[in-house]
Amino acid sequence: MQYFDCDYLEGAHPAILERLTATNSEKTPGYTTDAYCEEARHKIRTACGCPDAEVHFLVGGTQTNATVIDALLRPHEGVAAVESAHINQHEAGAIEAGGHKVLALPHRDGKLYADTLKSYLRDFYADETYLHMVRPGMVYISHPTEYGTLYTRAELEAIAGVCREYGIPLYLDGARLGYGLAAYGTDVTLPVIASLCDVFYIGGTKVGALFGEAVVIPRPEPARQFFSIVKQHGALLAKGRLLGIQFDTLFTDDLYWKISRHAVDMAMLLSRILTAKGYEFRFSPQTNQLFVLVDERKAEELRRRVTFSLWERRDDGRVVIRLATSWATKEEDVRVLETLL
Amino acid sequence: MQYFDCDYLEGAHPAILERLTATNSEKTPGYTTDAYCEEARHKIRTACGCPDAEVHFLVGGTQTNATVIDALLRPHEGVAAVESAHINQHEAGAIEAGGHKVLALPHRDGKLYADTLKSYLRDFYADETYLHMVRPGMVYISHPTEYGTLYTRAELEAIAGVCREYGIPLYLDGARLGYGLAAYGTDVTLPVIASLCDVFYIGGTKVGALFGEAVVIPRPEPARQFFSIVKQHGALLAKGRLLGIQFDTLFTDDLYWKISRHAVDMAMLLSRILTAKGYEFRFSPQTNQLFVLVDERKAEELRRRVTFSLWERRDDGRVVIRLATSWATKEEDVRVLETLL
Amino acid sequence: MQYFDCDYLEGAHPAILERLTATNSEKTPGYTTDAYCEEARHKIRTACGCPDAEVHFLVGGTQTNATVIDALLRPHEGVAAVESAHINQHEAGAIEAGGHKVLALPHRDGKLYADTLKSYLRDFYADETYLHMVRPGMVYISHPTEYGTLYTRAELEAIAGVCREYGIPLYLDGARLGYGLAAYGTDVTLPVIASLCDVFYIGGTKVGALFGEAVVIPRPEPARQFFSIVKQHGALLAKGRLLGIQFDTLFTDDLYWKISRHAVDMAMLLSRILTAKGYEFRFSPQTNQLFVLVDERKAEELRRRVTFSLWERRDDGRVVIRLATSWATKEEDVRVLETLL
Amino acid sequence: MQYFDCDYLEGAHPAILERLTATNSEKTPGYTTDAYCEEARHKIRTACGCPDAEVHFLVGGTQTNATVIDALLRPHEGVAAVESAHINQHEAGAIEAGGHKVLALPHRDGKLYADTLKSYLRDFYADETYLHMVRPGMVYISHPTEYGTLYTRAELEAIAGVCREYGIPLYLDGARLGYGLAAYGTDVTLPVIASLCDVFYIGGTKVGALFGEAVVIPRPEPARQFFSIVKQHGALLAKGRLLGIQFDTLFTDDLYWKISRHAVDMAMLLSRILTAKGYEFRFSPQTNQLFVLVDERKAEELRRRVTFSLWERRDDGRVVIRLATSWATKEEDVRVLETLL
Repeated sequence: MQYFDCDYLEGAHPAILERLTATNSEKTPGYTTDAYCEEARHKIRTACGCPDAEVHFLVGGTQTNATVIDALLRPHEGVAAVESAHINQHEAGAIEAGGHKVLALPHRDGKLYADTLKSYLRDFYADETYLHMVRPGMVYISHPTEYGTLYTRAELEAIAGVCREYGIPLYLDGARLGYGLAAYGTDVTLPVIASLCDVFYIGGTKVGALFGEAVVIPRPEPARQFFSIVKQHGALLAKGRLLGIQFDTLFTDDLYWKISRHAVDMAMLLSRILTAKGYEFRFSPQTNQLFVLVDERKAEELRRRVTFSLWERRDDGRVVIRLATSWATKEEDVRVLETLL
Repeated sequence: MQYFDCDYLEGAHPAILERLTATNSEKTPGYTTDAYCEEARHKIRTACGCPDAEVHFLVGGTQTNATVIDALLRPHEGVAAVESAHINQHEAGAIEAGGHKVLALPHRDGKLYADTLKSYLRDFYADETYLHMVRPGMVYISHPTEYGTLYTRAELEAIAGVCREYGIPLYLDGARLGYGLAAYGTDVTLPVIASLCDVFYIGGTKVGALFGEAVVIPRPEPARQFFSIVKQHGALLAKGRLLGIQFDTLFTDDLYWKISRHAVDMAMLLSRILTAKGYEFRFSPQTNQLFVLVDERKAEELRRRVTFSLWERRDDGRVVIRLATSWATKEEDVRVLETLL
Repeated sequence: MQYFDCDYLEGAHPAILERLTATNSEKTPGYTTDAYCEEARHKIRTACGCPDAEVHFLVGGTQTNATVIDALLRPHEGVAAVESAHINQHEAGAIEAGGHKVLALPHRDGKLYADTLKSYLRDFYADETYLHMVRPGMVYISHPTEYGTLYTRAELEAIAGVCREYGIPLYLDGARLGYGLAAYGTDVTLPVIASLCDVFYIGGTKVGALFGEAVVIPRPEPARQFFSIVKQHGALLAKGRLLGIQFDTLFTDDLYWKISRHAVDMAMLLSRILTAKGYEFRFSPQTNQLFVLVDERKAEELRRRVTFSLWERRDDGRVVIRLATSWATKEEDVRVLETLL
Repeated sequence: MQYFDCDYLEGAHPAILERLTATNSEKTPGYTTDAYCEEARHKIRTACGCPDAEVHFLVGGTQTNATVIDALLRPHEGVAAVESAHINQHEAGAIEAGGHKVLALPHRDGKLYADTLKSYLRDFYADETYLHMVRPGMVYISHPTEYGTLYTRAELEAIAGVCREYGIPLYLDGARLGYGLAAYGTDVTLPVIASLCDVFYIGGTKVGALFGEAVVIPRPEPARQFFSIVKQHGALLAKGRLLGIQFDTLFTDDLYWKISRHAVDMAMLLSRILTAKGYEFRFSPQTNQLFVLVDERKAEELRRRVTFSLWERRDDGRVVIRLATSWATKEEDVRVLETLL
């Protein structure tokens, strides 16, 4: 069987396991207050170019989104996001459990566009009854998006500009951020993101860690007590150093970027193979996720030899399947897959 | 100025104020445990043809929706409703404040159709990842809808059938139920609603009461403790008899139906006037709300003499305005309006 | 039967019903945006000596407490209150439903004392693990308390001083505020409360209105959007003018104070009668509620002729019963009660 | 420095890290649906003697408590627990964030007693106003308690009996369950717990795992969808096999019991040393936590060489400090500590 259904099939990059093993018998204080976490924070601040940033380590993506959104919003506010956003589709109502509506906006290829956001906000405040409606209190985007697509720097700047105009914070979900940063041709870097977003997170779970997400607040306001909100959400790891060690490793010698680039390279190789075989893509390949149009019969045949996600059934007898590479994908895996396509 | 912007412009039907005044100095127990509430419950049960129904009296519509939905759902469940539903648009996030997502479905003329619901539910359970998504735990409809349109009995039966098939309760928001029951040509009656819905409410605020909504649970399950959930939602009126007296009055000698029919008659008169003058309707007039297409300039001109709601701006230079009649609308008001159209 | 079990047995003061009747057929905009509400706001601001105050009208006490507390707290914060507080005992978890813990502190005669509060706050921040605990984000008191006792101006100043020291707002629940203001010997006035509290409410339900509570925010911060939070809590009355008319009436010609004083006078008369007959009080009588120690057998005998609340069973064979007067209590009622004691 | 401040100072038992390393490059499905989780579930069911149990793997204790309690309660219900309970003190309001009140009861040595529970429940339902109060919808206990004390089997049976009498579920927090099961003289076993509790969890974080808690539902009801509630709480680990591998390792060859017994043995050794030196205990030593009375000056002196938790300041010039051993404590560490006492 060839496995291309997601980017969290394996454990962790070996360097991480080695350090966890090497440090296993050390005794450290808990709850991310240890020296490994401090060191990882330092490296992340440096990589982001924001020396005053708060950096918090959480375990998983859904809990990170729920915690950040809860921390940023007042009770009557909601979070604006594209209809296809992870928080709107696949978090089992975690945002609503915190009391907040996801204000779903239309997307193009999974991306929120500044004009869409602006016209939504303009119309909202133009409505006489807007005080009876859920106030858009923040904007959520993800980079890469659910469809593996990427924002350009100019697009992010435009969104951030609208947010500033309306006085609402911008939050970027970076569950797969590495694969976005390591994409070819992108002009979006960590410092760019840190300069435009009010909060974002750097995903570890899907980019080489056993688990873990690093929330960055580039310009923290005093007295927000994010730590306690993390605790309240059950997202504070007792043995917090496990997160510190992982992110310290990922942010040493560009490991995070290197393993992400490898995944992108594998995806680009696979996309060339697919193109050569005449397959079309639902979204233009940019990161580690490929959304491929396949005849239904072919998809059924493939399923016996390859794991993938079924994304969409179309009326033209084709389905959209998702093939994902990761830091762990080997070129030989892609070559075997080639023979099956 | 002529007032047609909504159906809650005045106080209450005079018969209600008279009884409130006549009983004002009586001493009764609080929290809807008094004899007036009991009598009103009896009359409502009789009108609905369900002698075992629980009947609870709440103050307003938003709190009623939030309370009922909270009582019916488990934490990870959401409420399926059309995108235009009041709970999805104009309750400032009251449903999400209770922790639940509104699962917005497409509508036709404000109505949910059984086929839409069924295909949504089928697709939901066909999705491999459905356990990561918000489970549809109940269905919300309103009758009349936000657009003043009405379900037929067959349409309600079809929706109820899908609900039964999937084992989820059906809840009907009857904020303007009187105007629906009193419409011409409808085959939907209180007993029909009581036989098809698991919970519904009979609206008082918009149909002649000062305030008040009567929640009916036709076939109550034991030990649901709805009373405490009402209290928790701040929806339990201390001087509960005010609700009992109002609903007792409305359900004596068909007053609820009669004043609703009057509002419908006024709306029908107005619709004939509008048709004669060449106006078109956005939705076919059925109840006390008329959605009329008007040139923008004409709308601006009207606004100086008439209050109405602006519903929608269109690309063709016209707007949709809502004109509402009520139990209190006088024929002479309609005749004055006629001269302005 | 003589009725002394609570202070909301009757409808409203006749002057209120008369004005509701006189204005019944007027057409006004909804949701407390009408001229009556504006006039009532003006009178309340004047009475409180705070011309810039925001004044919001809600329906009942539990919903008011839940709404205010929700509006003031961040997610990880709780509300400090005495263990006997209404929000901690008799609101069916309305505060927790909003996501907040009630941090219960010891009381003396139902009152929170500044030293209790201060030592609690000092200990909280002295605990190394305080970031793992619920942060006290505001203080709740009621005046009168659940036991009918009153703060002195100096006591309120001391509490407000501790709140300022710790940077947390002070909220005063005034469900029975009139009876406190009209007590003999009190030095607490509306302007005193307005100068010391960040938010408070003036209760109508228990002091002559059909229903209604007026929330006063003496020094509002910009952009808090309390209105939308009221709506979200289902606490925004569609026919808002009913609240405006009631509070306008209560704040015309000192009616609120006069009817409160009447209730206090009736309670003082009753307390003299009780003292003369040898009864003891659990709390010293100050307002319209008397907590009387009665032999169990006597209490049972009384119950056949008088309604009262059973407050507490003691080990000495006595019970504490609560007798409440109100704006509607007649001296002849007290005289009949005298014959039964 | 000697470290005795808690039982989660190190990483994981070496056998766990070895298996994580050995399996690191395997590809498995996510979200605890893999074969390792299945195997761990099988072993846990066997150890508990309940072959039909649902077993769910979560990451940490606070999130486990919040998730279980949310899943068991209806909106207006609260959870009864002793005042010293972890959920009442040190979870930053996680339970209230889910909308539920912690109903704090008095304890003796950290334990809830059946008579306390029964008299609370009896009084609750005897109160005429109980429908205005938070309904006790479940009971929470922990074993060992916050003070390291243990229930006897008879005590657990008595509590379970009261729960059954009132029809409410019993939930046992087993964050340190291993240390309880491995205590000397206890008659409480996993099958005993499984037969008496409706839900409980077996703690991994504090007993040898990197992280992880195994929730056991011995007699699951159909259609409770606990999985989705775990997801909603952000408690579903993407690489779920990390939990499966850890619990599979812990439940192979009695490792969980063996390492727990080692910690207890170290604590008993330390308690004998302390007793010999004349120290007194605040609670009788039973598990891996010792609560020792120490002169303030001595405590300050110790703090320079030993880490411990400061538990309580007393009026007699002494403090209570907590010394904790764990699966990782070495006898030589205890011997070094001996020289410092």
